[in-house]
Amino acid sequence: MSFYDAVVPAYLQMLNSLTGLLTKAEAHCAAKKIDPAVLIGSRLFPDMLPFGKQIQLVSDFAAKGCARLTHTEVPSVPDTETTFAELKQRLAKTIDFVKSFKPEQFEGADAKDVTFPAGPDRSVTLKGQQFFSSVSLPNFYFHAATAHGILRHNGVEIGKRDFLGMN
Amino acid sequence: MSFYDAVVPAYLQMLNSLTGLLTKAEAHCAAKKIDPAVLIGSRLFPDMLPFGKQIQLVSDFAAKGCARLTHTEVPSVPDTETTFAELKQRLAKTIDFVKSFKPEQFEGADAKDVTFPAGPDRSVTLKGQQFFSSVSLPNFYFHAATAHGILRHNGVEIGKRDFLGMN
Repeated sequence: MSFYDAVVPAYLQMLNSLTGLLTKAEAHCAAKKIDPAVLIGSRLFPDMLPFGKQIQLVSDFAAKGCARLTHTEVPSVPDTETTFAELKQRLAKTIDFVKSFKPEQFEGADAKDVTFPAGPDRSVTLKGQQFFSSVSLPNFYFHAATAHGILRHNGVEIGKRDFLGMN
Repeated sequence: MSFYDAVVPAYLQMLNSLTGLLTKAEAHCAAKKIDPAVLIGSRLFPDMLPFGKQIQLVSDFAAKGCARLTHTEVPSVPDTETTFAELKQRLAKTIDFVKSFKPEQFEGADAKDVTFPAGPDRSVTLKGQQFFSSVSLPNFYFHAATAHGILRHNGVEIGKRDFLGMN
């Protein structure tokens, strides 16, 4: 299997499953007469990031991960989404972006250096595989699972199968 | 980079960082005079699994993932832990188990079939890379991040840097 096969399907699985979570969250708000902005602004603790920001970060870790691993321009997307429709659009654009990469672009990328920012005044260099396994993917899943946890905590009827994209 | 390098460090990073979360959770209980059993039994929603079970599942997905990918005996560990010390011991044993695998055992494992249970009466067969990327790792991170979310929701002073093992 190629490095592309290790990277791109993993990002796509979760970007697609989170799209499904957004659909269920939107339906939950409609059914329970909840203002969508309340759920999008929900957090697990006052100093944690809200649901909407978790989705934006999932999007960023996927898009920037692909760009850094292939040494192409790292996209910068403003975090302007305030509705479920806009968050789904953000994920849809990210899916298109991730799908735009070709397997050839990932050839040898596991062993190439990737330099990425680690704070305002600091950068870190790791091999591509290490960057993917120890930085990009744990951050990506952290925000995806936290987004799931926020919805679950607020009573949206979802479960791990939705998170995995099996429903 | 080898398939071993893609698999084993990823499991170990999170098993180690969760050990650190358990230490902080235990200290939080002592400082706030919280019965540890209350925090270990905490959930984000009544029909979700409690914190202790999330740790047990993280342990299982790492240990069983390594075993399935290398076609060695899949361990079955009873879920008996009820204290922070016992949960840390569970993670320590899992770390030793994961570290016991050799790079040679993972050679070619990305392209070999892995058959695993998907419910009581059903099994699924995927290539090793697909099993790792689309089943083992998302489940592993799901329970790790949910464990983090439960502690965070309960006021334990941790953050993403603890989850990533950077603190």
